[in-house]
Amino acid sequence: MNVITNRVEMNQIVKNYKCNAKTIGFIPTMGFLHDGHLTLVKKAKLENDITIMSIFVNPTQFGPNEDFESYPRDFERDERLAEAAGVDYIFAPSVEEMYPNEMGNQLSVLKRTNVLCGKSREGHFDGVVTVLSKLFHIITPDKAYFGIKDAQQVAVVKGLVHDYFFPIEIVAVETVRELDGLAKSSRNVYLSDNERKEVPALYKSLLMAKSEIMNGEKAPEKIIAKVKEYITKNTSGIIDYIEIYSYPTLERLDNMNGKIIIAIAVKFSKARLIDNIILDV
Amino acid sequence: MNVITNRVEMNQIVKNYKCNAKTIGFIPTMGFLHDGHLTLVKKAKLENDITIMSIFVNPTQFGPNEDFESYPRDFERDERLAEAAGVDYIFAPSVEEMYPNEMGNQLSVLKRTNVLCGKSREGHFDGVVTVLSKLFHIITPDKAYFGIKDAQQVAVVKGLVHDYFFPIEIVAVETVRELDGLAKSSRNVYLSDNERKEVPALYKSLLMAKSEIMNGEKAPEKIIAKVKEYITKNTSGIIDYIEIYSYPTLERLDNMNGKIIIAIAVKFSKARLIDNIILDV
Repeated sequence: MNVITNRVEMNQIVKNYKCNAKTIGFIPTMGFLHDGHLTLVKKAKLENDITIMSIFVNPTQFGPNEDFESYPRDFERDERLAEAAGVDYIFAPSVEEMYPNEMGNQLSVLKRTNVLCGKSREGHFDGVVTVLSKLFHIITPDKAYFGIKDAQQVAVVKGLVHDYFFPIEIVAVETVRELDGLAKSSRNVYLSDNERKEVPALYKSLLMAKSEIMNGEKAPEKIIAKVKEYITKNTSGIIDYIEIYSYPTLERLDNMNGKIIIAIAVKFSKARLIDNIILDV
Repeated sequence: MNVITNRVEMNQIVKNYKCNAKTIGFIPTMGFLHDGHLTLVKKAKLENDITIMSIFVNPTQFGPNEDFESYPRDFERDERLAEAAGVDYIFAPSVEEMYPNEMGNQLSVLKRTNVLCGKSREGHFDGVVTVLSKLFHIITPDKAYFGIKDAQQVAVVKGLVHDYFFPIEIVAVETVRELDGLAKSSRNVYLSDNERKEVPALYKSLLMAKSEIMNGEKAPEKIIAKVKEYITKNTSGIIDYIEIYSYPTLERLDNMNGKIIIAIAVKFSKARLIDNIILDV
């Protein structure tokens, strides 16, 4: 496995593979890898000749009061895990390498942002599509892999690729969970011991919602109320949102039909956790 | 020569060439070809294995009161000229092919737009970078060719490629002129016979400015005043702007040093003409 930090060198390496008709699978990450990321690697390796992972904590997708500085980082551990998983190249640029100058252009997400995480994280998705546009041009992958845990991100990225005709297939991969149901996340390390015991309730609340819907409940507000009650009763977290939308369009529903997402975000003392479930009603 | 109208087919054709290590030269145009375009083709053919020209009158770069509907079009003539010049593929999509849905993202140019044509054509360059981002992803060229007559466009496109790391080299090609100095332009067909006789004065005014600067004049406002006087005296056109900036940064100058551009736009009864000269002072 090779670690590349220079974007021109990375692009040249990919170009050589492309000249030899090799396909490229790409996993963009912010590092601090967990099984969720490694599941993406596994899938990328199955479907492509070469697997490239980027590790870059992107400052432009963090708000001024968010955790950019304290976002967990452990490059040596990431390197070991990526190598063991069979990643061929890690692309790990510096902030200066990715943002060498003040930008003269602005890429903004207009749709699918006034809901879920976009509502409380102003500008977050603008930063996401900006850094991904850059990474996509450096890596020029055939396929790029994202975890469906960040369901809104998947929807926004698919919108980006669709709008600008990036010649890339976006592959959404199932959320990987701990045995007790907690969705794997780099931010789970911030949970206190007590909080860690409570948080399986998040996924349980989603499963409960699923079973209510399967039993015929059609009113989003009733489901939301039940999920709220369950999380409030079983955790010390503060609910940021519990929302139900069409997926991937993320539009409001009067009544649940077709593909829908139930998504939640809950704040604990040092960690804000998100989770979701996508159903075909 | 082949004419392709479907973006997926075009992308697939290019992919096959790339698998065989062929280089792609790209000339984006709005059609109604003239010698300026054909000079770009000549240069692209010298520097690449395959030459692709797009012909697409892009609605998003025209303002509501501009000439999108009446912009001159003659596809059959373009086809003949492109084939004779040795173009390998024309990519000629419909508006629906390039804008299949309402966009969920917005790409905006922040720098270099409040001057020259950007000032009077609000949103024009947003439309230019949007359509070029799409075309660049469909064609994935190694090099893309632009005429320096649209000097601001060249600067903006270089900014786009630089900001988002498009793996494309932007090649700026010298303005092609009629024997009397008039810069070739698709819009020249709109000139009346009388106007056609006057318009060589535009380039003459720029040459006059050049010689003033070569003789030591350092004050932009003095040069601008002389160019204004010359154009007013020798044409019936209405001056839209006469401006002098640093190039390619397009910043205001107190005093002329380094690479500068003198750019003019003049409105005639049915045509708005632009021209410029770039000097190293």
